[in-house]
Amino acid sequence: MVNTRLPDSIAVADVEAARGRLAGVLTRTPMIRLETDSGAELLLKLELLQPVRSFKVRGAYNALSMLSDAELAHGVYTASAGNMAQGLAWSARRRGVRCSVVVPDNAPATKLDGIRRLGAEIVKVPYDDWWAVFTTHRFGGLEPARFVHPVSDVGMMAGNGTIGLEILEDAPDVSAVLVPFGGGGLSCGIAAAIRASRPEVQVFGCEVDTAAPLAASIAAGRPVEVDRTPTFVDGIGGKAVLEEMWPPVKRLLAGSLVSPLSEVEAAIRLLVARCAVVAEGAGAASVAAGLRHAGSLGRIVCVVSGGNLDPSVLARILSTQQT
Amino acid sequence: MVNTRLPDSIAVADVEAARGRLAGVLTRTPMIRLETDSGAELLLKLELLQPVRSFKVRGAYNALSMLSDAELAHGVYTASAGNMAQGLAWSARRRGVRCSVVVPDNAPATKLDGIRRLGAEIVKVPYDDWWAVFTTHRFGGLEPARFVHPVSDVGMMAGNGTIGLEILEDAPDVSAVLVPFGGGGLSCGIAAAIRASRPEVQVFGCEVDTAAPLAASIAAGRPVEVDRTPTFVDGIGGKAVLEEMWPPVKRLLAGSLVSPLSEVEAAIRLLVARCAVVAEGAGAASVAAGLRHAGSLGRIVCVVSGGNLDPSVLARILSTQQT
Repeated sequence: MVNTRLPDSIAVADVEAARGRLAGVLTRTPMIRLETDSGAELLLKLELLQPVRSFKVRGAYNALSMLSDAELAHGVYTASAGNMAQGLAWSARRRGVRCSVVVPDNAPATKLDGIRRLGAEIVKVPYDDWWAVFTTHRFGGLEPARFVHPVSDVGMMAGNGTIGLEILEDAPDVSAVLVPFGGGGLSCGIAAAIRASRPEVQVFGCEVDTAAPLAASIAAGRPVEVDRTPTFVDGIGGKAVLEEMWPPVKRLLAGSLVSPLSEVEAAIRLLVARCAVVAEGAGAASVAAGLRHAGSLGRIVCVVSGGNLDPSVLARILSTQQT
Repeated sequence: MVNTRLPDSIAVADVEAARGRLAGVLTRTPMIRLETDSGAELLLKLELLQPVRSFKVRGAYNALSMLSDAELAHGVYTASAGNMAQGLAWSARRRGVRCSVVVPDNAPATKLDGIRRLGAEIVKVPYDDWWAVFTTHRFGGLEPARFVHPVSDVGMMAGNGTIGLEILEDAPDVSAVLVPFGGGGLSCGIAAAIRASRPEVQVFGCEVDTAAPLAASIAAGRPVEVDRTPTFVDGIGGKAVLEEMWPPVKRLLAGSLVSPLSEVEAAIRLLVARCAVVAEGAGAASVAAGLRHAGSLGRIVCVVSGGNLDPSVLARILSTQQT
């Protein structure tokens, strides 16, 4: 089932409506300060404190809330490496609806366990078949369940955008918002929410240098595919920017900030030591960018998007010598 | 300089006054849910998200705010294993006042680094000399600086108590509050705040079985000294309940919940995996107790008091096989 609205049609009214649906259900996440050694201060929007440890539950819950009981009669499904799956499964359980998830066959066991614990069914497929679900907006084997696109669904983006409204309330002096860029559903949702009242605030997508399709697409002036090196950073770094996301990406984002993998790991260590929180790779990519660009972008808010990091990966990163 | 008010004189009016002093300075920490495998749900009050990763900054900032410029002319000092030191140092830096800290000579390097980064001076002494500062309320070498007692100071307790007011707002259906018990300044502060309007809510002190002076004192009917085995759990587990804390402890607390060290480590692992936060040993002691007593105490709030855990200790705990 194809979405009827194009992603670029998202407006602040969609975000405000989402906010009403999420109130009392999800966490009003706090904004805390990270003092850096250089004396700069970054503000962190801690989405890792949401249920299922990721912002994705905002979009998933909002998208599900917009569907009627009839539309949900056969359940819902999505394609995800983990966080969106858990977000949709959590929301479906709360609504009392069946949920299935198509995952790439390299998805980490920790995330699959989390999905199963929330009562969703898992369908493992090769990476390219999994990616195809994003472009075709369907996976035949699971129909007639209702497909919820993890990125380019306006309800999903609007739910994510509620983060933008909260940022403006908690940091009215913000000048730049740094957001991990996976498919653009988070960064564009936030930018749409902020743009309405504060068009001068810059919203950047943040990537890791092992897979940076946004930077490559901006350089090419059109959405392009990139070679990607798989790493533990599995929440961002797809192989391309989706065609339908390119118009809002071009319109709403100020650019891409790309960090080396080593700086993402250093940001994870710093967040444990200074803030007592565990960010996953994607979630720390915005902090890595913030540390690098502190001083040049004014008052920075980093969206720490999620905290689903495998404990063995965290132990390895903590044991790595800092340089 | 000796405090003029006895700890047992603390009243909800002290806590409400503290709340006014802290507003806009410290974090209104969120309450999040922890789903356990048994299906029980614990509510977690995340004090590890405060500046310096500990509730201690609430009491320290309040106590400092109650002193005049004349009283602060020679600076302040305290005795602490780390968190109170960082809380007072942070508050003193904000007020523009000199700060010194007496620490036991086994204090972890991570905490000492944190204290120095906040601009405070460190005085290392043997454990028994350090403990003596709590009972004598002075350390001659640092006078005429003003001594701030880390536990049995009414301003300190009242600042800590603001946590109790926030718990009642965020979890009006709470029936039990589980609080790490170090000296009793946190648990009694919270209990004093809650008692005024909800006397039926039970507030428990939580300890680890390697050092449980509260449980021993309750069993004896008077404050007694215990043998203690030093572990990585350094925020609780002193060698005795202070004499002046015994009256409020007896009056305000429902009892002591003691957890084995292995369950505290398991709670730290669970908090990383399910909630993406890093609790120190003391902070996880309340969660360990909550996991053990879920189902028998009604609606439980666990105060996760702090997150100053040495990264190498965390890596070791994460690498330990779960049983």
